[in-house]
Amino acid sequence: MTRARFITFEGIDGSGKSTQSRLLHDHLTGTGLPAILTREPGGAPGAEDIRRLLVEGDPDRWSPETEILLFTAARRDHLERTIQPALKAGKTVICDRFADSTRVYQGAARGDLRTLVDRLHDAVIRIEPDLTFIIDMDPDAALARGLARNSGEDRFEDMGAAFQHKLRAGFLALARDYPSRCHLIDGNRSANDIATDIRAITQATA
Amino acid sequence: MTRARFITFEGIDGSGKSTQSRLLHDHLTGTGLPAILTREPGGAPGAEDIRRLLVEGDPDRWSPETEILLFTAARRDHLERTIQPALKAGKTVICDRFADSTRVYQGAARGDLRTLVDRLHDAVIRIEPDLTFIIDMDPDAALARGLARNSGEDRFEDMGAAFQHKLRAGFLALARDYPSRCHLIDGNRSANDIATDIRAITQATA
Repeated sequence: MTRARFITFEGIDGSGKSTQSRLLHDHLTGTGLPAILTREPGGAPGAEDIRRLLVEGDPDRWSPETEILLFTAARRDHLERTIQPALKAGKTVICDRFADSTRVYQGAARGDLRTLVDRLHDAVIRIEPDLTFIIDMDPDAALARGLARNSGEDRFEDMGAAFQHKLRAGFLALARDYPSRCHLIDGNRSANDIATDIRAITQATA
Repeated sequence: MTRARFITFEGIDGSGKSTQSRLLHDHLTGTGLPAILTREPGGAPGAEDIRRLLVEGDPDRWSPETEILLFTAARRDHLERTIQPALKAGKTVICDRFADSTRVYQGAARGDLRTLVDRLHDAVIRIEPDLTFIIDMDPDAALARGLARNSGEDRFEDMGAAFQHKLRAGFLALARDYPSRCHLIDGNRSANDIATDIRAITQATA
């Protein structure tokens, strides 16, 4: 019997996180493992309401500090109402983005706010994933993919290519900072090849 | 020339804060002093969007922790976009509720969360008012007034009379904790008598 784990997917916009989250979820449930698929910001009714404030509107709608508070509020709600109840019920939780995204987006790429991100995380979140896949990809290719997708959640994509390059560097640094749980995945390949790698690592670390 | 001050009004729901904020604002601008009237949660376009998440919906829509994060996010936005620009422009700011409400509502009345309230205040708000009026009133009379008003912002009023009594005790304790800036005002009188007291204190402390 495999224990319920908290597995997260991270990476820049358009890197294929959502696709790979879904493929892993479908694979695990197909093998009979109870699992849920969720995402951030959002993943619970209240957190989804906060998500709309974060992903819609002008790039300067919020200051970095306000943005960090809103992401942390959404995360706390998601944790209380979706993630923790599922883990307690023995379900593996697969989450498209989690605290690492805030560390990189707000802590590294938009001003030197990593200290504030860490203080809020320590105050109200505290939990870390058991396993994190960081899908690494060329930012220009990822941005083109994201724009083609026309997701309607353009606030971060609108910040441009230079921002995406900063984010990529932030995720690479994160993989070095948390080597035991973070696995760097080459995203410049077919979805099928990537999914095969991810399944193998998920099984090997169970 | 009187310096621009940050003046806040605090008290339980239905205590007459909003009326007294407006009366003081009208009085000061009538004497030629530049002043703005604002309120929390809200007081800036983004903060008003967050306000809707806070004042609408079921009493258990948010956990106390998530609620504190949302109030702090709204306050940070209000501070950056409305309060600090007005003070810098030499305008006195009159605000219906500020950080003291969070200290009392979330810190005292809904679980022992004052430590979290203080940590967030120290991390992203830091400013305190120059002058605070705490309008003290019998909670049963205030609740009846609030319900009659039918404000459409019922989430806290729905928490009932026992909650309002806890809040009153919290505000009285706050007045003792911050004696130099907090003035306790007897709210069980006519609006005109209360306004006369408030004008006198505002002038005496200028």
